[in-house]
Amino acid sequence: TELTHFDDSGASRMVDVGDKPVTARMARAEAVVEMRPETLATIRDRGLAKGDVFEVARIAGIMATRRTSDLIPLCHPLPLEGARVDFEILDSQTVRIEATVNVRARTGVEMEAMTAVSVAALTVYDMCKSIDRAMSISGVRLLEKSGGKSGHFVREPVSS
Amino acid sequence: TELTHFDDSGASRMVDVGDKPVTARMARAEAVVEMRPETLATIRDRGLAKGDVFEVARIAGIMATRRTSDLIPLCHPLPLEGARVDFEILDSQTVRIEATVNVRARTGVEMEAMTAVSVAALTVYDMCKSIDRAMSISGVRLLEKSGGKSGHFVREPVSS
Amino acid sequence: TELTHFDDSGASRMVDVGDKPVTARMARAEAVVEMRPETLATIRDRGLAKGDVFEVARIAGIMATRRTSDLIPLCHPLPLEGARVDFEILDSQTVRIEATVNVRARTGVEMEAMTAVSVAALTVYDMCKSIDRAMSISGVRLLEKSGGKSGHFVREPVSS
Amino acid sequence: TELTHFDDSGASRMVDVGDKPVTARMARAEAVVEMRPETLATIRDRGLAKGDVFEVARIAGIMATRRTSDLIPLCHPLPLEGARVDFEILDSQTVRIEATVNVRARTGVEMEAMTAVSVAALTVYDMCKSIDRAMSISGVRLLEKSGGKSGHFVREPVSS
Amino acid sequence: TELTHFDDSGASRMVDVGDKPVTARMARAEAVVEMRPETLATIRDRGLAKGDVFEVARIAGIMATRRTSDLIPLCHPLPLEGARVDFEILDSQTVRIEATVNVRARTGVEMEAMTAVSVAALTVYDMCKSIDRAMSISGVRLLEKSGGKSGHFVREPVSS
Amino acid sequence: TELTHFDDSGASRMVDVGDKPVTARMARAEAVVEMRPETLATIRDRGLAKGDVFEVARIAGIMATRRTSDLIPLCHPLPLEGARVDFEILDSQTVRIEATVNVRARTGVEMEAMTAVSVAALTVYDMCKSIDRAMSISGVRLLEKSGGKSGHFVREPVSS
Repeated sequence: TELTHFDDSGASRMVDVGDKPVTARMARAEAVVEMRPETLATIRDRGLAKGDVFEVARIAGIMATRRTSDLIPLCHPLPLEGARVDFEILDSQTVRIEATVNVRARTGVEMEAMTAVSVAALTVYDMCKSIDRAMSISGVRLLEKSGGKSGHFVREPVSS
Repeated sequence: TELTHFDDSGASRMVDVGDKPVTARMARAEAVVEMRPETLATIRDRGLAKGDVFEVARIAGIMATRRTSDLIPLCHPLPLEGARVDFEILDSQTVRIEATVNVRARTGVEMEAMTAVSVAALTVYDMCKSIDRAMSISGVRLLEKSGGKSGHFVREPVSS
Repeated sequence: TELTHFDDSGASRMVDVGDKPVTARMARAEAVVEMRPETLATIRDRGLAKGDVFEVARIAGIMATRRTSDLIPLCHPLPLEGARVDFEILDSQTVRIEATVNVRARTGVEMEAMTAVSVAALTVYDMCKSIDRAMSISGVRLLEKSGGKSGHFVREPVSS
Repeated sequence: TELTHFDDSGASRMVDVGDKPVTARMARAEAVVEMRPETLATIRDRGLAKGDVFEVARIAGIMATRRTSDLIPLCHPLPLEGARVDFEILDSQTVRIEATVNVRARTGVEMEAMTAVSVAALTVYDMCKSIDRAMSISGVRLLEKSGGKSGHFVREPVSS
Repeated sequence: TELTHFDDSGASRMVDVGDKPVTARMARAEAVVEMRPETLATIRDRGLAKGDVFEVARIAGIMATRRTSDLIPLCHPLPLEGARVDFEILDSQTVRIEATVNVRARTGVEMEAMTAVSVAALTVYDMCKSIDRAMSISGVRLLEKSGGKSGHFVREPVSS
Repeated sequence: TELTHFDDSGASRMVDVGDKPVTARMARAEAVVEMRPETLATIRDRGLAKGDVFEVARIAGIMATRRTSDLIPLCHPLPLEGARVDFEILDSQTVRIEATVNVRARTGVEMEAMTAVSVAALTVYDMCKSIDRAMSISGVRLLEKSGGKSGHFVREPVSS
């Protein structure tokens, strides 16, 4: 067991990935936002009319992929090639958010996908907190990762 | 029920808070990071020696309070007066993170506290993902909020 | 005639506004985006269904108000209190964008309003450039400014 | 007619460009700033002495090329290889700004060039607004684009 | 002796300054850049003609005052009211840079002034490194600070 | 003698490096922070217990490598592959900081290394200024650079 973000002396570092090959890499992550049924009903009704909470949160999540290395201290800056954020209503009080990020690079984009779902979820919180302060965000986790030497990682998304 | 971030026509906006009084405001939020016991043991052992995962995550969380309005589309920029991020080991596989943010302003700092715990948790994930890709972040929620006209909101933190 | 952003020796500076009083200040600016009628028809049709160009551009414009002092070299950072961006279809090939920004501060928010309409217009361009590369942005100008010692400035918006 | 920034369901996204080849790409854009003749005379006189408005605006425009993906929601971050911003006095009340941006990448740099001229023009506005609040920015448009599969696009700059 | 950026348990924090009064605060800092006489002669000759190294560095230094809390982990974000950066040729191989920053706030602007001279000096290095890679920056230090409860601090600038 | 950041007319620019080959590039830089012996003793004692000044400064320096092109006007944005910052106590009142940055790119990373040591040193200043306002930063200079056509540059670090 080794935490690669520290060297032998315990100093943190942005690990040199210069010797790794450039490969096509992808990561998917998810988060869920739990809220009162009335809150989710309000989001859903608005989306059908005007003022779409998910669209604002989607933009926030996509933009956050490009801010990841501004936020996470030892994360590499990467020239991201694609990013998407999707929303799914799981049940009367749960929204699932999934982000997919792509790049051809020497290191992966797990943190970009994890950051995207976190910021999208925080944006949902921000937009609904005036009516439901007790909302919570959970299940922020990696769903899939491919393209690195550690192999293909995949697991099932949460479902209703 | 009204989502104040939209106007009557459904257009999103940064709500004008100019008519609200400047008051001393505080918010506390928490998140937990769940991981394999071996992962938490590694973090704990390192902290006793050199290379402290929590200290890196703490810095990330504190710095993120000042990036909140760069990330959350309709959030007000605020001249924050104080921020702290604390870590607590709840049990053999759970770390609890709590952030407290202070300001004297016309609007509150819930989003800054929620963003701080999220980014601190993401940093823990980043630093340990090489040994435990399946870690997850949950329970991102507001614990306390004071200073606004909506009154004092407080609830119990999660405990072991 | 004096350019206050330079001192007597010709050195640029962020002018010291510490002696000015804090007052409620507002600025409104506008821009128009000209495009082929087919392009505007596509935007309009999508907005009625799904995938609203204006909503993405609105978010970009609002977020840009908070990045203004990152972009404009001698601009003061301000704790903005409100911002909104609105869209109006003037005729079959012209969209008008208007931004309104509010703050209580020692200096005005003209640049925040001007930057908001510019970035919103650039976002419309970005989203439609795959079908209409020749779109152009014009009429970026201040419509109204109040709250400073230079008095109330107001002029008519462009109309169809 | 297709807006590639939306998927089939209408969700906005940062389009995956991973399958496009890396090619040498260039884009040029222009904008004009219209002002009172006295204002342009002041800018011109200062430039000959000390305190050069255009030099400050040039720096702002060049720096803005690197902030483009922070501002435009669905824009790809690119490792820009070159950027320049030039100023030309077209007549007694009109300044023309032209930006050229270069990269070898999977997608183009139109938005970087458009953003550069916009921010340079906004900076001219900022520096002269104390003497001419009614200045306006227009003709923000793409002049040339090469290197992508959509072929070479070129048009004439505005002239006096 | 107490490092206020740590609490009693050793955790770093952004110290809560909410109980301090808002006062007019000022800080001045300086740095020197040492280079070969030929390098300084080139800078000086250019400034008299076209292409002023110091003007570019000045803009960088002023803009850096507003990025200080993005860079320094435990620094408070402040609504800066004024900033200036000046250059003085001390002798045939030494340039002195001085920055002055003003604010009315609950905490001081030493870090903004120190960051401004550092970034201005780094910009001089960047612009001249193609002809003089061995340039060095030294004497980065606080010259004056006023407005806080710790009293007025002042010392002499370096001189030729 | 030529300053490549200006063109023939004296206009500053981000030089087009598109024709240079991509090579593995490395740069090392150093800075020293001078302080009262009591201050350095406090830093050292804390590091042995809790609240490590150098760890906070290290994180700041590493993160600053990724902000370099936000700060230095004519600097290219680069997809950095590695960064580390180390601290050495030279004598009872002097700390030496060294940064190493790696990339495979068309241009070098001297500015990233120079910025890293500067920001790490500024962070040490920030954290200790409450007990030693007169600390100074000096000897900010390039130690080594490899990978470009200008050849291998190397010099000795400062020693006690």
